[in-house]
Amino acid sequence: MRIARFSIDGNVAFGAVEGESPPGTTDGLVLDIIKGIPFADFELSGTKVPLSKVRLLPPVLPNKVVGIGRNYADHAAELGNEVPDVPVAFFKPSTSVAGPGDAIVYPSFSQEVHHEAELAVVIGRMCREVPRERARDVILGYTCANDVTARDVQKREKQWARAKGFDTACPLGPWVETDLDPSDLTIQCTVNGEQRQLGRTTEMVRSVEDLIVHISEAMTLLPGDVILTGTPAGVGPLNVGDEVAVTIEGIGTLTNRVIKRG
Amino acid sequence: MRIARFSIDGNVAFGAVEGESPPGTTDGLVLDIIKGIPFADFELSGTKVPLSKVRLLPPVLPNKVVGIGRNYADHAAELGNEVPDVPVAFFKPSTSVAGPGDAIVYPSFSQEVHHEAELAVVIGRMCREVPRERARDVILGYTCANDVTARDVQKREKQWARAKGFDTACPLGPWVETDLDPSDLTIQCTVNGEQRQLGRTTEMVRSVEDLIVHISEAMTLLPGDVILTGTPAGVGPLNVGDEVAVTIEGIGTLTNRVIKRG
Repeated sequence: MRIARFSIDGNVAFGAVEGESPPGTTDGLVLDIIKGIPFADFELSGTKVPLSKVRLLPPVLPNKVVGIGRNYADHAAELGNEVPDVPVAFFKPSTSVAGPGDAIVYPSFSQEVHHEAELAVVIGRMCREVPRERARDVILGYTCANDVTARDVQKREKQWARAKGFDTACPLGPWVETDLDPSDLTIQCTVNGEQRQLGRTTEMVRSVEDLIVHISEAMTLLPGDVILTGTPAGVGPLNVGDEVAVTIEGIGTLTNRVIKRG
Repeated sequence: MRIARFSIDGNVAFGAVEGESPPGTTDGLVLDIIKGIPFADFELSGTKVPLSKVRLLPPVLPNKVVGIGRNYADHAAELGNEVPDVPVAFFKPSTSVAGPGDAIVYPSFSQEVHHEAELAVVIGRMCREVPRERARDVILGYTCANDVTARDVQKREKQWARAKGFDTACPLGPWVETDLDPSDLTIQCTVNGEQRQLGRTTEMVRSVEDLIVHISEAMTLLPGDVILTGTPAGVGPLNVGDEVAVTIEGIGTLTNRVIKRG
């Protein structure tokens, strides 16, 4: 099931996305409005709205987003880094989250903002110290993420709070796919229609399960929390006016435009 | 005004702390229950409860806690670090917050957990790109914090999400003091009554105002968000069974006991 979060006439709801559409469009898709929230048992209301009539929102409102650096060997190498012995875990705050179609606002304190296309794991239930064999049980589903990074700031500042945590640095969407095996999916990033990143989740150094074990060993994960699983090679600059799209096989496409801070 | 958050008979409320008590005790203190929340105009209800009858909670529930590393030169030196050209900003997640009297649970993945006594700034209003001369306006008040750190993990893992973000790694309290000049206060940390850290906020490399400018340049701060302003020299290990107390002049004492994970 594809679960979207959306607003219509000022109301916010979750809905199940039904139908098929040509690539890159939402023509023909409808939302069956969910009664309740997707983090507990819920029913579909049967009330359907064309997706073209709503505004899609970030599919979840995470309490925290935990990012993982250098989880694809090719990407680590392109920035001159080695694959670390332990995963590099960092946070992006809830204030950095943006939705599908939302602007990425170019931050005033950077001159080099990069795209990083990533598979995002959405946590479905409160959990801590998750054993590897139970890791899949705590996952609600998967969405696309862009781990937008001020690369110059990342190089200057030892910790990445500002480089990866600025407002709009974490676009998520377009929806959460709950029925998906994350182990062998294509991840692609285009800028203005040109391919910049192309990888497969098979190249991940640590699997989704490994990352859940590693993070939940330290901290409680809450429903709606998000884990970013690292980016494949091909990261590069975004400029004001660019349209950046992250497409993951089996999920869909997350598109955002870069704008100047007004 | 000292604003505490507390629970009594299963209800959670804010209250203004009134009265004086001998150092290290809460004898004689009463709470005047607040109508509404302290992030907007509010009134005191006049209904008073002895502080000894309630359980104090973390004085705020931050959406994010932004920590600052190496903001006291003596502390940077004691760990063999230089004072950085730009502040080292990192996040502690909301799931790491603990209240006064709550346990610090020794994490399973560390053998070297340290105390770090810090002045915590509590944000009072939503803000972004705060000019220096307006920085004081966005502050609700100040509380004591312990930036509990798994020092061995911090050395091993390049980013500090696990080392500083584990559950209970961010005790805050006992309350928020709203009428305080933060520029010249004594900060002290004791373990089992023995003094370990002693510093003054005059030694801070960057002032409270500087930090608000630096952080809000990148990200929106929300009411209840917390900024930790760095720790003076004297950090050292905590062991299971230890009682650690952070005392800041003009605020009060935050006390926590270290326990084994059960």
